[in-house]
Amino acid sequence: MRPTVQPRRPALAAAVLWALLGMPLLVSAADADMAAIQRTVTAQHDVSLKRLQDWIALPSIAAENLNSREGAEYMARLAREAGFQQVAVLDTDGKPGVFATLDAGAKKTVGLYFMYDVKQFDPAEWTSPPLESKLVDRPGLGKVLVGRGAVNQKGPESALLAALHAIRIANQKMPVNLVLVAEGEEEIGSPHIGQLVHRPEVEAALRNTIGVFMPAASQDSDGNVQITLGAKGVVELELVASGEKWGRGPKKDIHSSLKAMVDSPAWRLVKALDTLVSEDGNTITIDGYPAAPPISAEHKAMIAAVVKVRSEAKSKKQFGVEHWIDDLPWQQANERLVSQPTVNIEGLVGGYTGPGGKTVLPHRAVAKIDMRLVPGMKKDAAVAALKAHLAKRGYADIEVNVSGGYDATQTSADAALIQAQRSVLERRGIKPLLWPRNAGSYPGFVFTDAPLSLASGHFGLGHGSGAHAPDEYYLIESTNPAVQGYDGAVMSFVEYLYELGK
Amino acid sequence: MRPTVQPRRPALAAAVLWALLGMPLLVSAADADMAAIQRTVTAQHDVSLKRLQDWIALPSIAAENLNSREGAEYMARLAREAGFQQVAVLDTDGKPGVFATLDAGAKKTVGLYFMYDVKQFDPAEWTSPPLESKLVDRPGLGKVLVGRGAVNQKGPESALLAALHAIRIANQKMPVNLVLVAEGEEEIGSPHIGQLVHRPEVEAALRNTIGVFMPAASQDSDGNVQITLGAKGVVELELVASGEKWGRGPKKDIHSSLKAMVDSPAWRLVKALDTLVSEDGNTITIDGYPAAPPISAEHKAMIAAVVKVRSEAKSKKQFGVEHWIDDLPWQQANERLVSQPTVNIEGLVGGYTGPGGKTVLPHRAVAKIDMRLVPGMKKDAAVAALKAHLAKRGYADIEVNVSGGYDATQTSADAALIQAQRSVLERRGIKPLLWPRNAGSYPGFVFTDAPLSLASGHFGLGHGSGAHAPDEYYLIESTNPAVQGYDGAVMSFVEYLYELGK
Repeated sequence: MRPTVQPRRPALAAAVLWALLGMPLLVSAADADMAAIQRTVTAQHDVSLKRLQDWIALPSIAAENLNSREGAEYMARLAREAGFQQVAVLDTDGKPGVFATLDAGAKKTVGLYFMYDVKQFDPAEWTSPPLESKLVDRPGLGKVLVGRGAVNQKGPESALLAALHAIRIANQKMPVNLVLVAEGEEEIGSPHIGQLVHRPEVEAALRNTIGVFMPAASQDSDGNVQITLGAKGVVELELVASGEKWGRGPKKDIHSSLKAMVDSPAWRLVKALDTLVSEDGNTITIDGYPAAPPISAEHKAMIAAVVKVRSEAKSKKQFGVEHWIDDLPWQQANERLVSQPTVNIEGLVGGYTGPGGKTVLPHRAVAKIDMRLVPGMKKDAAVAALKAHLAKRGYADIEVNVSGGYDATQTSADAALIQAQRSVLERRGIKPLLWPRNAGSYPGFVFTDAPLSLASGHFGLGHGSGAHAPDEYYLIESTNPAVQGYDGAVMSFVEYLYELGK
Repeated sequence: MRPTVQPRRPALAAAVLWALLGMPLLVSAADADMAAIQRTVTAQHDVSLKRLQDWIALPSIAAENLNSREGAEYMARLAREAGFQQVAVLDTDGKPGVFATLDAGAKKTVGLYFMYDVKQFDPAEWTSPPLESKLVDRPGLGKVLVGRGAVNQKGPESALLAALHAIRIANQKMPVNLVLVAEGEEEIGSPHIGQLVHRPEVEAALRNTIGVFMPAASQDSDGNVQITLGAKGVVELELVASGEKWGRGPKKDIHSSLKAMVDSPAWRLVKALDTLVSEDGNTITIDGYPAAPPISAEHKAMIAAVVKVRSEAKSKKQFGVEHWIDDLPWQQANERLVSQPTVNIEGLVGGYTGPGGKTVLPHRAVAKIDMRLVPGMKKDAAVAALKAHLAKRGYADIEVNVSGGYDATQTSADAALIQAQRSVLERRGIKPLLWPRNAGSYPGFVFTDAPLSLASGHFGLGHGSGAHAPDEYYLIESTNPAVQGYDGAVMSFVEYLYELGK
């Protein structure tokens, strides 16, 4: 399980050379012996990897009521072992969270946002068992750990914890105090994150931080790093058409021949859904839906810089897509990705869903929907508009069951949390690309909105992919010197913490 | 397991008195000792019931590739044991069928259509295990046998077989020769019934018959009997929208945030479905779809006679329905039931269908559809119109996967097969109601269409319900003298065969 030792080649650029040497070229945290920490990270590699594998073996899945209490207790243990002095499992109306503080006597305090839950998975779809964390050779990358949560988010989070262990074991001074908030409902839209963050003791602790970040694997498979300044908001909900609520159609599944005299809730769902988006499925047509502000010139420029180095062909191959919406060119497709709200069908479920057919007239049909929001759009306003739209179109009986969601989040490129990321990366010879906003969602709003109004972001070298999909992986031993494996990811957190502590 | 013995009450009407005595009042088949057969039926009750229970314990489900070969062999054995001299299991491109003949040296030959397959079931939805055929008290009815296939169609079919056993055991002469065709794909739309019926030896045997009937439980819970003169045709199919066929959207499920730049096959399915029916879901709007002929005055009159005695309130309660389509009155709702073609959504399946949500953009979404056809509409023309409609509206990529189906069937009220039913019933004091057409489907077209052009129908006293639903049942021991239990059903087949043999 040791990282591959690369042969030295003197002509390489600074960033690559750094990777070959396995240590930072330029260490500006004068009060820390970075070489000692690096040696410790290397020595602790197997222990750290085992810590990650053990964690993956305990999946917490809120949607399935699976192991949430166990996952929170485990998260608390991981925090205690990593040096947090105060650790508490906090109950919410949903799944419990974890609040922990590490007082290093440092002048600055940094917030950490963790999730201990993972996405659902079907082992039958995986080529390697999703809870066994096997190390698998992946051509062009190296050895990757395959498992549910590998990159989203246990891998990077475990690397952050490994950084804390390494600093302690190497007898170096922790450069910052830490405040950790971990939740177990991220994958269902963080319905109770506010109950955690706005508890008086948690809010008070966070108020002292210079910002909150989530550990991540920010490198693509070529090693490029992107600093993302925000994320869309999201609402997850079910639209349910039923004979019970409608007062028409059957109240139980009946024989399909009765369609000739009985109304169909499944058709009603189709008709209601049809009103929500344009013919091509891409423009939201909900009456009075919050408008998205136009994309700014600053954001367009950021995207232009990124699309130059991000391969369109690779992305198309990765997603199995031949054309972007409206056959947009790469730049415009990415502008759309960043700036446009969406109404997406995650799933359709109604009547008979097994093999072949079954002649029933279903009494109930459900569309599972997610709606992504950009800053300026409020979750509550979006849901209210959807409900008003359905009522106005005569579909007031269709239930809108919101299961989770939150507003968008945005942080300025000038925030200290972001500037420290740029410094760390540039010292390594990596010119980070700025990305205006993640099209996916994370509940940064709870930190960036009032009353906290903090900076928030993600950070971490390393690479992984397959979040929410089968064969999710996190790179452990990299064959590409420009892409960090596990130990490189750990060191990136060490450096970031020291940079933040300055 | 004996039928309840009822106390005699002298003032009752003839039909009821007949039931109390357990034998026909008027036996016109002078060449048979009906009383001896009746005694045999009574004596054989337990054996016959056991035969039914054993059959139900072996479910054949074509949609699930379950026990089709075993079911055909079992059907063949049942036929041999009931006295058919020639019995063959015949292969088709789908599930095997059974062809059997019983030569009694009689002057007339009658065709029998059986199905040995049953509908899918989920034991979790049943209050009594669906393969255990438990006898359960059902208030207002008596003891019913609960099991998958109890009424659709093993119960009535086993009663017909019990009639053959009883005639033989009572040493009475079989009044007719029989030709039996049994299939194992009725519940998936009989895709290969033509391959069975049009084999030269089968077609030749059927050509000699005066018509073909399927054993049924024709009494409602009040004992009323309806003679149904036909059935709608049906097409079962799946409409599939996919990134693969569309050339847009993803070829695998991807993260839902990508909806902002990637097209959605699920939305495409919704948009295509939307074009198939009117806003209320009740009028077919497929361009060039075959037109349904208007309902005839004769059929309207038949319906008028039936709705007078069929309780609208009971039907509404049975189906869990508060309003018929367009709030039609009872008569018009039934006219619509009989005369209107339908396009029904049996099921919707796409993307994530489990509990809660999952932020995916599905690469594929499916609508399971059944379309009912009335005489004058051809299955192939309906499918062709659907495909042309989708192509014309720009949805040529949406797959139309037809899994089964057939044309409508219709038999004249004047056919000997029907007239014999009326005679048997009227002799019992039952005034049968004529019903123009079953809104459900059975593949009678294979008998009623050219080249055979035979009469076809259903017959059988007795009662059951819950076809295609949980807790399907067949009445075994009736507490209502006007409604036949199992032995009464058996006797009704005895009488019908003797009547047909005249």
